[in-house]
Amino acid sequence: MKRCRLVLTGSGGQGVITAAIILAETAVLHENLNAVQSQAYGPEARGGSTRSDVIISKEPINFPKVYQPNVLICLTQPAYNKFYPIIRPGGLLVTDSRFVEIERKADAVQKQLPMYETVMEKIGKPIVFNICMLGAVVALTELIRPESVRKVLKGRIPSGFLEMNYQSLDIGLSLGEAAKN
Amino acid sequence: MKRCRLVLTGSGGQGVITAAIILAETAVLHENLNAVQSQAYGPEARGGSTRSDVIISKEPINFPKVYQPNVLICLTQPAYNKFYPIIRPGGLLVTDSRFVEIERKADAVQKQLPMYETVMEKIGKPIVFNICMLGAVVALTELIRPESVRKVLKGRIPSGFLEMNYQSLDIGLSLGEAAKN
Repeated sequence: MKRCRLVLTGSGGQGVITAAIILAETAVLHENLNAVQSQAYGPEARGGSTRSDVIISKEPINFPKVYQPNVLICLTQPAYNKFYPIIRPGGLLVTDSRFVEIERKADAVQKQLPMYETVMEKIGKPIVFNICMLGAVVALTELIRPESVRKVLKGRIPSGFLEMNYQSLDIGLSLGEAAKN
Repeated sequence: MKRCRLVLTGSGGQGVITAAIILAETAVLHENLNAVQSQAYGPEARGGSTRSDVIISKEPINFPKVYQPNVLICLTQPAYNKFYPIIRPGGLLVTDSRFVEIERKADAVQKQLPMYETVMEKIGKPIVFNICMLGAVVALTELIRPESVRKVLKGRIPSGFLEMNYQSLDIGLSLGEAAKN
């Protein structure tokens, strides 16, 4: 893929922006790609939905806003209800089965994954839910390599919390891989 | 001011992106403004300079990239050397006296502040340097209220680290206030 446009959505506190930043940094620092990552806040931010846009490309990127993402991630029902219509036809829609109930079939590849549930069951810390989501996106899109994400995590996360983040990334990678077929 | 365009620059690990996110969130959540916050990564990101753009406005914002900032913050010499030419004539240029040596007079209001030095002297933790910078910017620009920043910090930062962040914000506010005259 020459250019991938991703929109990550959820509620404040789910770490959506952090996951977007890690994704963009990984692409640039370890995959020799260009990336732009942004968030626009408006009246809707006061209502609780968080949206972060990432564009990853081999070419330079001039315009940072995403209109129709190839990849849309929704971690809450309000975010799903709101952002669902913007997905590019044939794109990839990733949702979390604990938080989102899918009501209709989109013109997209829909992957409803038990990310939150598995993180809580195996690690018990909701704070790494976003890294699990990142792992699932990495497995499903193959945009960047898991080992490159680990390098970025290592540089950002205090050593006492690193193992938990690696573990959550691995859970996401497994869920994404399993959902490919 | 109807619209303020800020560019925050420094090196990876100085917390420039986090400060930009806190600034944008504060404007939206507690000041009834609109905000867009972005970072573009390209080949230069591999060289070490971090740049984050923030636009704050009463009006909706359509284009998230900043070309000529009203406010430019440079926390390292390479960032200063690189981004210095983009400041809007008559704008505000904030630099840190520990890391940046000013070589020429710009067509801008230049504030060289001992932010890092004061944080290290009074708190001793470089991790809150970015919050001190944010305090200085808040005092100098009066874009948002300090108490609104404290609310956002309270929602983001684990309680054990909150007091240190408040203290660093206050140092920045004092430095910014003192530099106004």
